[in-house]
Amino acid sequence: MRILVINPNTTQSMTATIADAATRVAGRDTEILAVTSSMGPVSIEGYYDEVFAVPGLLLELAKAPALRVDAAIIACFDDTGLDAARALADIPVIGICEAAVSATAFIAQKFTIVTTMERSRLPLEHLVQRYGMSSRCKVRAADIPVLSLEEAGSNARERLREEISLALRQDRAEAIVLGCAGMADLTAELRAEFGVPVIDGVAAAVKQAEALVSMGLSTAKRGAYATPVAKPYRGLLDMFQPGRSGGMPEGG
Amino acid sequence: MRILVINPNTTQSMTATIADAATRVAGRDTEILAVTSSMGPVSIEGYYDEVFAVPGLLLELAKAPALRVDAAIIACFDDTGLDAARALADIPVIGICEAAVSATAFIAQKFTIVTTMERSRLPLEHLVQRYGMSSRCKVRAADIPVLSLEEAGSNARERLREEISLALRQDRAEAIVLGCAGMADLTAELRAEFGVPVIDGVAAAVKQAEALVSMGLSTAKRGAYATPVAKPYRGLLDMFQPGRSGGMPEGG
Amino acid sequence: MRILVINPNTTQSMTATIADAATRVAGRDTEILAVTSSMGPVSIEGYYDEVFAVPGLLLELAKAPALRVDAAIIACFDDTGLDAARALADIPVIGICEAAVSATAFIAQKFTIVTTMERSRLPLEHLVQRYGMSSRCKVRAADIPVLSLEEAGSNARERLREEISLALRQDRAEAIVLGCAGMADLTAELRAEFGVPVIDGVAAAVKQAEALVSMGLSTAKRGAYATPVAKPYRGLLDMFQPGRSGGMPEGG
Amino acid sequence: MRILVINPNTTQSMTATIADAATRVAGRDTEILAVTSSMGPVSIEGYYDEVFAVPGLLLELAKAPALRVDAAIIACFDDTGLDAARALADIPVIGICEAAVSATAFIAQKFTIVTTMERSRLPLEHLVQRYGMSSRCKVRAADIPVLSLEEAGSNARERLREEISLALRQDRAEAIVLGCAGMADLTAELRAEFGVPVIDGVAAAVKQAEALVSMGLSTAKRGAYATPVAKPYRGLLDMFQPGRSGGMPEGG
Amino acid sequence: MRILVINPNTTQSMTATIADAATRVAGRDTEILAVTSSMGPVSIEGYYDEVFAVPGLLLELAKAPALRVDAAIIACFDDTGLDAARALADIPVIGICEAAVSATAFIAQKFTIVTTMERSRLPLEHLVQRYGMSSRCKVRAADIPVLSLEEAGSNARERLREEISLALRQDRAEAIVLGCAGMADLTAELRAEFGVPVIDGVAAAVKQAEALVSMGLSTAKRGAYATPVAKPYRGLLDMFQPGRSGGMPEGG
Amino acid sequence: MRILVINPNTTQSMTATIADAATRVAGRDTEILAVTSSMGPVSIEGYYDEVFAVPGLLLELAKAPALRVDAAIIACFDDTGLDAARALADIPVIGICEAAVSATAFIAQKFTIVTTMERSRLPLEHLVQRYGMSSRCKVRAADIPVLSLEEAGSNARERLREEISLALRQDRAEAIVLGCAGMADLTAELRAEFGVPVIDGVAAAVKQAEALVSMGLSTAKRGAYATPVAKPYRGLLDMFQPGRSGGMPEGG
Repeated sequence: MRILVINPNTTQSMTATIADAATRVAGRDTEILAVTSSMGPVSIEGYYDEVFAVPGLLLELAKAPALRVDAAIIACFDDTGLDAARALADIPVIGICEAAVSATAFIAQKFTIVTTMERSRLPLEHLVQRYGMSSRCKVRAADIPVLSLEEAGSNARERLREEISLALRQDRAEAIVLGCAGMADLTAELRAEFGVPVIDGVAAAVKQAEALVSMGLSTAKRGAYATPVAKPYRGLLDMFQPGRSGGMPEGG
Repeated sequence: MRILVINPNTTQSMTATIADAATRVAGRDTEILAVTSSMGPVSIEGYYDEVFAVPGLLLELAKAPALRVDAAIIACFDDTGLDAARALADIPVIGICEAAVSATAFIAQKFTIVTTMERSRLPLEHLVQRYGMSSRCKVRAADIPVLSLEEAGSNARERLREEISLALRQDRAEAIVLGCAGMADLTAELRAEFGVPVIDGVAAAVKQAEALVSMGLSTAKRGAYATPVAKPYRGLLDMFQPGRSGGMPEGG
Repeated sequence: MRILVINPNTTQSMTATIADAATRVAGRDTEILAVTSSMGPVSIEGYYDEVFAVPGLLLELAKAPALRVDAAIIACFDDTGLDAARALADIPVIGICEAAVSATAFIAQKFTIVTTMERSRLPLEHLVQRYGMSSRCKVRAADIPVLSLEEAGSNARERLREEISLALRQDRAEAIVLGCAGMADLTAELRAEFGVPVIDGVAAAVKQAEALVSMGLSTAKRGAYATPVAKPYRGLLDMFQPGRSGGMPEGG
Repeated sequence: MRILVINPNTTQSMTATIADAATRVAGRDTEILAVTSSMGPVSIEGYYDEVFAVPGLLLELAKAPALRVDAAIIACFDDTGLDAARALADIPVIGICEAAVSATAFIAQKFTIVTTMERSRLPLEHLVQRYGMSSRCKVRAADIPVLSLEEAGSNARERLREEISLALRQDRAEAIVLGCAGMADLTAELRAEFGVPVIDGVAAAVKQAEALVSMGLSTAKRGAYATPVAKPYRGLLDMFQPGRSGGMPEGG
Repeated sequence: MRILVINPNTTQSMTATIADAATRVAGRDTEILAVTSSMGPVSIEGYYDEVFAVPGLLLELAKAPALRVDAAIIACFDDTGLDAARALADIPVIGICEAAVSATAFIAQKFTIVTTMERSRLPLEHLVQRYGMSSRCKVRAADIPVLSLEEAGSNARERLREEISLALRQDRAEAIVLGCAGMADLTAELRAEFGVPVIDGVAAAVKQAEALVSMGLSTAKRGAYATPVAKPYRGLLDMFQPGRSGGMPEGG
Repeated sequence: MRILVINPNTTQSMTATIADAATRVAGRDTEILAVTSSMGPVSIEGYYDEVFAVPGLLLELAKAPALRVDAAIIACFDDTGLDAARALADIPVIGICEAAVSATAFIAQKFTIVTTMERSRLPLEHLVQRYGMSSRCKVRAADIPVLSLEEAGSNARERLREEISLALRQDRAEAIVLGCAGMADLTAELRAEFGVPVIDGVAAAVKQAEALVSMGLSTAKRGAYATPVAKPYRGLLDMFQPGRSGGMPEGG
């Protein structure tokens, strides 16, 4: 089984962290292909960045048939472009927020997502609402830039720890979800430190992808995820025009 | 007062219909600037098309300061790119679905949106849920392509009428919302024919834009609509990189 | 266009404040007729007062055809009598809470209403729930009598400012809605002071009324807003008996 | 124990039906005082009638201390004026819709209210939502005038039966709630006929009133049900001005 | 009228407290039969205990026909086994949480349940949600073992008082519900002390049982409460096998 | 990795079907131990049966440490006893309804569960609501006894097919969830027949169990799933008394 993990943040070093987290939990027969999008923001922080991350993400996803992968993962906690990706692809596509929230619901009745930027809090709350978990899952922001997680000398990891402590004291949280793909390497140490389940979305998405592939399941095409209608696209992005070859762009 | 109406469908003839509907209700002191996006799909039908409509839409919106407009309208019923547009702009930005639903709520307790494609139904239901109207507003699809509304000889308008009839008989609908910018020219005749209020989102958005400008209100920047963070964007879309000049792209 | 603004609080000086706020935002072609109800409480504070404010309000509304007005506004933040008014009138009727909440939703994702009396908080929360905004809009009370807003020497305006500060610090509010018609004159100074959008319901209702009239829309009569059934009314209030002349009382 | 049952419909014959239903279930030590309001519509059909039924209702309720009653019931299925009545009175006040829905929830998981006029359906749905039963309780209307229930030769009772049949076939209803005080005399025969629990709100309210009195409970006065503030009332309704004598009007 | 009150906690002294509370509010013609289950945990604290309390509870309930009782009450605030009990019995069965919450809703718009163990808080929140009261009713835990309420020298009652104080200060609670059958004897003194309505579920359930019996109502059998299907039960619990005699076990 | 699959229906032949479905999707390194409970109903059909299925289920689960299994699955679509099982065990415990619904949400926005008995429909709707999927997932019943699925000559499978057809035509279902462990062997043929994703809960639960174990996650013990308090249990079920040996019963 081959799983394509796409980092829509165009930052190579973050992809390395994500690839590690994915590989660590993958089954013996699973091969992880982690790629960095070549178009768009170096980090996705809020609604505007999301828009410009999606074309690059879909470009990587469009290579899926050529790469003979069985499932794809969008490795950004905003589940950026998930709906469009599901419409485009014939293989299952998993968002890491969706996967993390879904897995946590099997082990805790109340839990808290701790994310990076305050401006990502409301979009994540909308995802949580859409995934049916509003009454069980709170969202907190440590108010740190995404890339500061990787910077030597930043206080990002301390701020993250402070927010986890608050979640445990004030939210009745029974478990903590790490709200950014760039936090995946901290899972083990935060579990040891806080003594509660700590869930990383990248790992959760890999296992969910394996699960769907094992069961022979893929995205239902009867509703809003129907394959895009062939039609002209004008201007700069015309290479994405559906129907150019079998309902999918040809890739880069 | 000047209002920029952006058609994110890259089809000029649809923009003409939209411009007419906007001009018909605009106040005496309001000037309507209707523009067609130069990038992306000729019609927006579902999640995939939405992705590729947004960059072109934001490109037009980025010209707002140069055009000295006071508010902007996104003239596609999916409210495509609305969140990113609000983060980008300093002027109010209005979606036509949001405006239509909001206006209708003042005159009817139960109402139905009739849209074009079945695949747009679920995305519209998500919008209706987000706008707080799930218990009052149903969504129906006439199952017609967007551009068929303009085609001589198509049965699109008959199908639309059939679906309106069903809404009145089965949904307890007291009013009908036209779920596509391309239906704006039908408002008057459908009102006359069915004897109930029929609401077009383009008109509703123009009046809502005038209202916000008159009250001196614009998008709050304290939360998720904060101005995008300056950062590098890679590849094809790097011209959209925030912070290049005053937190906004330079336009085309 | 003529808009009838009815103050159901029987206090003339409050009507003056309301008329000012209405006139300030009205379009060049809009004439504002602000009237004070002649029956009922001097200020509406809670459920009991509401009951006795409505007959006087409807009495003024019944004069609408004679006054040739195009829309009516109920200038009390409890949206007192709104449903009955919509059943009675053939023109659009707007409540100022509904209008304020609806307008604010276009510019902020989270916001807080600051009202006067603690006892009005729950009724306003019910309105917010009915308008579909419970997850976005909180209600706070400054715990001040309505008429104290006008009294020289009262600390009402300080209390209001304190509560706004709390809303901004504790509610993640991105904008503030003034929860009483009697606060309309404070809008500009509170905006300047707090640096966030501050919304007054009277202004919002005027613009909403203009919008509906421009679009040629009025209350749908297919459901619960159907014209009252002609029937005998007994006792003191028999002058309100529907059907006496065209389904409406003759006025005063 | 004495329970005041107020019929806010100013129709004596309906009060007789209500009094019978109340007396039939009252405990051995309970005395029922059924009174007809002297002011307002002969039947309450929709929002407009509700407004003019409340003053007369409150006038009767204000006599409660003089009558030495222990609880009061509002015998109209719209729970007309319930909030204001609770603010006014020091004794418990029960609405018959609230009592019926609450009792039925102990014996059925899904049930349907069958009411009279289509225009009352939405107001009842709002009550059901407020009482927390939206997911369990549907509302149907037989589309019959309230007073037709009493008219010899009307087809009202047949229409009611038809709607009950539909509820049992289409709503998964396990029990039926009679949605009008004027249907109280039909309870026994409809139970026998349909073989399911049939609930009348008048009976339910009497038992709920007895329950609260036995437990020594009355309306909490800490929130929105606080006693009305003393203040001037102007015009026709000034006799209702709170604070004239102990926070309550003197009655008729 | 005879009401069977079953204490599913196998602790006799707690049953005495419950019997007192029941008798105090029972009508003159009501006989209370309070019994202690003979199988299961001495106190029910959380999900695991609940499982083993239910068979003993149902064993007592199965004696109902022989005892000629008219209704049954489950005297544990978790409403342990309520659904199964309703499927088993032909008489009405009342849970004390359901009864308390339902009665309180008639006298307060916002209220708080104060229970014993923190681990019971979430199960009670689920009950409150199911009873439709999530937006009105909060749950707090005093973090005390159930049986400590009876122990001389424990600080359980102080902790309970502290939590009631917090509810009144922080939850906008207008009334307090005692969240454990073992608190029933404290009702009167807590009312006097805090000056707000304090509701005990045992009393509320007795009055609700009397109400349903007076109205001639019992559990609807059309849906999920249909009588259990006759079938083999294997092993230790085979005596509970439905259909052995008239669809019910023979008792002890 | 070893996964314990417990069939709480005491019917061996059903366990064989379940074991097959589990083994088919299990990873290469996963060993499936499928056991049949030795106590309780031969099939679980409604609330009453559920009660008597749980002790036997927990008895099997208590053997988990001795069997050195890493996770446990409850193979009944009612997720019978799931909360108690999570409180008891230190390993993850998965319900098949929860797993099926959760997996389906990754591939379809709207879907329908088709179960056996009408009386199981409401309990399943409550599960769906608790799992946050009420707006996306409907429940239908084919109205067939559980064990009829295995009976030669029964029309159970035809009835199931009819209900699936209705779900696809009337519910906008994009995928079908099989609502009974005993349907697991039909998955492949129903997929082929209907051309939509068909999900079996047993398979979904196995993959979810593998996922949690791979991620090193188990049930959070900070809230309502805390280990049961040691205390006396009386009567027949005293062998289940917590704390007898390490907080768990000794097994059979």
